Amino acid sequence: MPILNPDDLRRIGREVFERVGATPKEARTVSDLLVASNLAGHDSHGVVRISQYVSAVARGQIQLGTTVEIERETDATAAVNGHWGFGHVTATEAMHIAIEKARKSAVGIVTVQQCNHIGRLGGYPAIAADENMVGLMCNNGHGADLSMAPWGGLGRVLPANCLAVAVPSDRAFPIALDLTAATAAGGKMRVALARGERVPKDWLIDAEGKPTTNPADYVHGNAALTPFGGHKGYGLAFVFDILSGALSPAGCTRENSPVTGNALFVQAIRIDAFLPIADFKAEVGRFIDYVKSAKTAPGFDDILVPGERSWRTARTREAEGVSIEETTWEQICETAKKFNVTV
Amino acid sequence: MPILNPDDLRRIGREVFERVGATPKEARTVSDLLVASNLAGHDSHGVVRISQYVSAVARGQIQLGTTVEIERETDATAAVNGHWGFGHVTATEAMHIAIEKARKSAVGIVTVQQCNHIGRLGGYPAIAADENMVGLMCNNGHGADLSMAPWGGLGRVLPANCLAVAVPSDRAFPIALDLTAATAAGGKMRVALARGERVPKDWLIDAEGKPTTNPADYVHGNAALTPFGGHKGYGLAFVFDILSGALSPAGCTRENSPVTGNALFVQAIRIDAFLPIADFKAEVGRFIDYVKSAKTAPGFDDILVPGERSWRTARTREAEGVSIEETTWEQICETAKKFNVTV
Repeated sequence: MPILNPDDLRRIGREVFERVGATPKEARTVSDLLVASNLAGHDSHGVVRISQYVSAVARGQIQLGTTVEIERETDATAAVNGHWGFGHVTATEAMHIAIEKARKSAVGIVTVQQCNHIGRLGGYPAIAADENMVGLMCNNGHGADLSMAPWGGLGRVLPANCLAVAVPSDRAFPIALDLTAATAAGGKMRVALARGERVPKDWLIDAEGKPTTNPADYVHGNAALTPFGGHKGYGLAFVFDILSGALSPAGCTRENSPVTGNALFVQAIRIDAFLPIADFKAEVGRFIDYVKSAKTAPGFDDILVPGERSWRTARTREAEGVSIEETTWEQICETAKKFNVTV
Repeated sequence: MPILNPDDLRRIGREVFERVGATPKEARTVSDLLVASNLAGHDSHGVVRISQYVSAVARGQIQLGTTVEIERETDATAAVNGHWGFGHVTATEAMHIAIEKARKSAVGIVTVQQCNHIGRLGGYPAIAADENMVGLMCNNGHGADLSMAPWGGLGRVLPANCLAVAVPSDRAFPIALDLTAATAAGGKMRVALARGERVPKDWLIDAEGKPTTNPADYVHGNAALTPFGGHKGYGLAFVFDILSGALSPAGCTRENSPVTGNALFVQAIRIDAFLPIADFKAEVGRFIDYVKSAKTAPGFDDILVPGERSWRTARTREAEGVSIEETTWEQICETAKKFNVTV
């Protein structure tokens, strides 16, 4: 597989998006977040998306040069409309609005409608953690993205709604949780199918409720993702759907949604409203040490804390480069060539 | 098993707590919440605790007649100290402070230290939902309550930290999520042991990391609860620990904590800061109908939404009475007799 310098990937993405008409700020925001996903090890939300977003711009799904509009607000809250700009840009701006509100009011909550797909949720709460705040975000599919069965039910009824939380620590990395309510995200079925592999038997159920280990039953058939932990993952997905969908007010998940994207619930909490930030960070650091000092289980070299693996991967890939699948790299080169971007 | 009228149980609890010196308000709050747990089907957090709390008062762990003190606050936030009063009273007052702040500032976040065990978390966010707000609460064991292994690690390192969320709907019940980050709570091991039953093999791991189905390995040995969904439940427990422990600032979980109880993170969000409450409730109602209309899986009669089972159980038990285990009832009668309370 080709190994690419992250700076080159950022430049290629930026130049491609600018050539299709994005503003320099939009192009930089989207490209940086895509490469950040690759660095964090979440390649399915990385530069593989460049050509997909170019197509979305071409067919008018992504509107260029839009501005996030605050439709309703208080000192601590805002309901904003992304007007179908780049989802990455809308989500970034929403988190910045939440942070500004938290700076003044200790807490900021922003809900977002008319927002295109935002990629990896984990990229946004980290912005708040960098500002010495707790950052939190959850989403639904803006009414669409049906992929997961409810607990006790069959079929693709819910999206694999996600939650991401980040808090600062006195270490080199923030604590960063980023999870989907599904046992495994749909992207993993595509990867398994491409590699000719089976998936664990608790990941998918078919239309009759029988487990299946064949990823094609999901990618080409009508098998559904399972919620992780059964009724618990289902309950989390249900609540994320309401916070992001009903409060935004994009709407909760439905059959035959006319649009797709991500409705968002975005929150920032200013930590020094509760205690001095240094005390907080030191306590998180102590807690990290305490948990990591436990005896490891068979098969584990180390106990990781949330966000540690992504941070380690990012350090390695920033230094050594990012491996890109051959077909993905060919696609990127093709798109770049089309827009006269040097690769 | 004896079947008791809920009103009688409430009166017995109230009178016992008053006789040991609780104020009428404290006695009523604790007793009502204990019986509410029985009604919801969570008997392990119900009237079985009466004699335990009487002992805790006797040995000074529960302080009577204390007042929740706000130690630091903004318009939207408060860090409060429960001064080791009844945990149920402290948690109720914390939620009311969050609600009052949300009434004025759209959002209220309250963190709580020096708080005794609060029982079932689900009892508190429902107070916010009744006020047309989103209610949310998570906890740790105030540094203690070690019962769960970290992902990739062995031993009792973390508590089975919990999350509860409630949102109003246009139905007879609010959506109410109430979950522990453990696959199953420790109370279920005690129930299984008392009944001479085995537990599923993913609930417990022993000190060497092997699964065990013997609940005695947990109740009398050093087996640990597992986090639900592996690294995901572990990640949730980790974040709940920071929000409740590091922000409160009771502290995160540690070895040999000098105290035990619950540190809390409590939040209320005023829904009409985002959209008219009737629109929100109607959308939640529509979402409930949509999810419940899916085809049921084999072995399920119905798809339930979060909070529906507890609500159904409460209606039945309120009407038909609450079954109390023989030994629990004998213990309650003994405690009542000691304090001249008629059963």
